[in-house]
Amino acid sequence: MPPGPVEQTEDAKTEAVPQKLPKGVVLGPDGKPCRTCTDVSSWFAMAKKETGKSTSIPATIPSDCPPDVQALGRSSWTLLHSITATYPEKPDGQLQTETRSFISAFSKLYPCWHCASDFQQWMKEDGNAPRVSSRQEFGRWMCEAHNAVNVKLGKQEFDCNKWEERWRTGWKDGRCG
Amino acid sequence: MPPGPVEQTEDAKTEAVPQKLPKGVVLGPDGKPCRTCTDVSSWFAMAKKETGKSTSIPATIPSDCPPDVQALGRSSWTLLHSITATYPEKPDGQLQTETRSFISAFSKLYPCWHCASDFQQWMKEDGNAPRVSSRQEFGRWMCEAHNAVNVKLGKQEFDCNKWEERWRTGWKDGRCG
Repeated sequence: MPPGPVEQTEDAKTEAVPQKLPKGVVLGPDGKPCRTCTDVSSWFAMAKKETGKSTSIPATIPSDCPPDVQALGRSSWTLLHSITATYPEKPDGQLQTETRSFISAFSKLYPCWHCASDFQQWMKEDGNAPRVSSRQEFGRWMCEAHNAVNVKLGKQEFDCNKWEERWRTGWKDGRCG
Repeated sequence: MPPGPVEQTEDAKTEAVPQKLPKGVVLGPDGKPCRTCTDVSSWFAMAKKETGKSTSIPATIPSDCPPDVQALGRSSWTLLHSITATYPEKPDGQLQTETRSFISAFSKLYPCWHCASDFQQWMKEDGNAPRVSSRQEFGRWMCEAHNAVNVKLGKQEFDCNKWEERWRTGWKDGRCG
């Protein structure tokens, strides 16, 4: 898997790829623009340039379109944190093995290849291998994985002491029902 | 894994579980109401009943709360279909094996246990085992899996000839950029 995002440069000359792509459009391993690696505004800016039409650029991807990199990220974290929230407090060995396989396969199949690659690299660092021996451990590990991405993207880190309120029980003020 | 949803009945008498739960509230394997198995309106109806407060019932779960069964479903299908959209046209044997493991582990870890159970059952039926030998096969198989859930929920089935437009290329009319 390639080591990081490849944005099209003005030097690139391939027939399959539009030249001079807008900033932010990321190419896939096939050398073509990758929807699930690119944010909606860059994607629509590219479409506008290609067609010459005055297409308006939506703030979020229309709901019946393939997700952009951000919609894909939100969806995936929702699933992953929810998996930790319903994980048993004391999982048996078989489930722990299966959970490690799931995380490993996820990190290879994730549709944004440079995000996937970063996640694989992070898991190889000291102390970052998946911890799945209890719900508490697994929930906290997932929170740390998410924070590593937050840091990379310049977003605020989440207080991992609160992962259960955010993803399992809902907040104590009752706003989650 | 239990064979189907367990909704609380008026006969149930356990200390941990509120009595006479509103219709639609599904219990988890621990016998407690399961957020990720229940729709937002049933969940808030339960909270209203328990607290006696005139809490308003939102149409969708607030974005900083654990997802309800529908938000979880939307997120998960977004990830799964997107995985098929970026799957190689000709995956090697190792990736095919890993993909089968991923689907199998997913069907055990999915946070709505009765949805997970239904998905496992469906995959055991003739012709429904995961088909992962090419992007086309895998994308179509996922579409069929999603349609099995649509049928179960009384929703309209999706035309699987269009899975790539919906999840990979965007629609030909250009509305996806």
